[in-house]
Amino acid sequence: MTTIQDIADKLNISKGTVSKALNNAPDISETLQKQILETAVELGYTKLRRYKNARRRLCIIVQRDNIQYKEPHHFAYDIVMGFRQMAEPAGYEVEIAPVDIHVQEKVSYDVFMLQNDYSGAFALGFSLNEPWMKDFQTSRTPVVLYDNHIVGNPNTAYVGIDNAEGMELAIAYLKDLGHEKIAYLSSALGSHIMQVRYRAFFQAMEHHGLYADDSWAGCSYFLSECMEKHLPRFLDMGMTAIICCQDTFATAAITQCKQLGFRIPEDISIIGFDDIPVCPYTDPPLTSVRQDRIELGKSGYYALNSLMNQVSIGTLLLHAQLIRRESSGPAPEL
Amino acid sequence: MTTIQDIADKLNISKGTVSKALNNAPDISETLQKQILETAVELGYTKLRRYKNARRRLCIIVQRDNIQYKEPHHFAYDIVMGFRQMAEPAGYEVEIAPVDIHVQEKVSYDVFMLQNDYSGAFALGFSLNEPWMKDFQTSRTPVVLYDNHIVGNPNTAYVGIDNAEGMELAIAYLKDLGHEKIAYLSSALGSHIMQVRYRAFFQAMEHHGLYADDSWAGCSYFLSECMEKHLPRFLDMGMTAIICCQDTFATAAITQCKQLGFRIPEDISIIGFDDIPVCPYTDPPLTSVRQDRIELGKSGYYALNSLMNQVSIGTLLLHAQLIRRESSGPAPEL
Repeated sequence: MTTIQDIADKLNISKGTVSKALNNAPDISETLQKQILETAVELGYTKLRRYKNARRRLCIIVQRDNIQYKEPHHFAYDIVMGFRQMAEPAGYEVEIAPVDIHVQEKVSYDVFMLQNDYSGAFALGFSLNEPWMKDFQTSRTPVVLYDNHIVGNPNTAYVGIDNAEGMELAIAYLKDLGHEKIAYLSSALGSHIMQVRYRAFFQAMEHHGLYADDSWAGCSYFLSECMEKHLPRFLDMGMTAIICCQDTFATAAITQCKQLGFRIPEDISIIGFDDIPVCPYTDPPLTSVRQDRIELGKSGYYALNSLMNQVSIGTLLLHAQLIRRESSGPAPEL
Repeated sequence: MTTIQDIADKLNISKGTVSKALNNAPDISETLQKQILETAVELGYTKLRRYKNARRRLCIIVQRDNIQYKEPHHFAYDIVMGFRQMAEPAGYEVEIAPVDIHVQEKVSYDVFMLQNDYSGAFALGFSLNEPWMKDFQTSRTPVVLYDNHIVGNPNTAYVGIDNAEGMELAIAYLKDLGHEKIAYLSSALGSHIMQVRYRAFFQAMEHHGLYADDSWAGCSYFLSECMEKHLPRFLDMGMTAIICCQDTFATAAITQCKQLGFRIPEDISIIGFDDIPVCPYTDPPLTSVRQDRIELGKSGYYALNSLMNQVSIGTLLLHAQLIRRESSGPAPEL
């Protein structure tokens, strides 16, 4: 096990200075502290032993540009609550750590965790190309990623719903209702989960013997581009159902279809993903693939606790559920 | 909730007779008992309320034709042990229920569970085409399947290692050692896990920019056919490494390669899957992708307990580990 002496030797400084850096003492320069923490991490020193602070601490890292959690109608609110419901009775102090790309560029994930004396993290909302996503490939402090999958690092786990199952349920349901021309509308494929759902669409179509080629999906970063470019194309192609990568795209698609003179669901069925709190209140109410967010939070804690106890969970997926509402119905007779 | 009265009404018999059937009374014919149990299951009556037998009971269903568990060197021994280590301290009685195809044909899974008063099952060793695999698509009694995946039934969960990650680790390792011509030797694709590993081989090869077409894999039910037909073909093709679907095939491949005058690992590297207890003792010791079987058993209990508490875990995969031994080494210089 790495000691303070090892870190001091490596940097050729005194043990006292290392100790100051690890304890956030005010009389040490930021540059030197950063150097000491990075060296500590490099030597495998990932846990502070601050006896004066006996409570074990976990953090929920929220990528603040991508995901919201503060209000009950925000997507991650229930995820945070589910995590706390498990972690706090188990004796952990849970802090929320909002980060953005600038924080990630300034400090590595392991150093951040060491600096703040966190034993493990539950990370929400990371896109594929962010700096810490690279850190997670080799990081040593346990981290559970919601909807992101790191291959080959036993200190990471992936928690989410089974999106392939969700897509399968949606397409089986539409096929039962007589739909054969089903399109997929997606934001850009810049996150793990958008890639998973995109592949799942084509797999499920094939599994049900329904035709689909690349033109049956439309992916653009901007919602506006999806509505202006892909949606009219789908309608021209005679699609009778559109599955959307997330509920916000689905609610926009409902509005746009109605404006173009199509009735929902008589002319076209729309299905979303996630079942966010607004879904029962759209007009018509939106059929959606549910993620049970309380359960996701609880599973996040379970996986993190396992990693911290050297039980190497890599992937934990919850069953998806299709919540049927009025935005979907029988295929129109042609 | 379904009552004994409901079952009696449906069959137009007395409550006393239903009660006798549910309690395994000796003075009731086998045919009538079977009819009563099937009706009970059909009506959603999946839990007996036998007050005289207060202990909650779980079972580990072992497909006895496919998997062995009785001796420490058997594959499922540690899986069973890991499951017991979690379930028994939690107050469950755990029984092993060996079944074969004949048992499955005689009685449905739900009826079997009701008959024996089991609250949930951990099922090991099922092939895709067995009768209960069909039952699991709609069954109501919680079941966790080791290495089998049922899509769309929230009363089932899949537990295993991440085989795609295992394949990825094996191929990354071989590529680092200079191998480019890597073949995959497999038994028939009649089980979920054989299909998963087969697909994972081609995905990982593609991911690493290595060429592979269908002829780079050889799959046959009989070990003998793999050794006589596929292995010599791979050697003719100039393969420098062979990944095998399981350790028994890998150890046979080592022997066969040596008999054909090839040195392991100087001429050809061999890697297995599972890391069964014999691997350190083969000649040379076998590099293999490990399944931690104690952890698999513990995860099986965790997933089952979650299902019984309406937390709908669908998939729980443990990280794979590559255990490097002497059956693999640098690619030969050509």
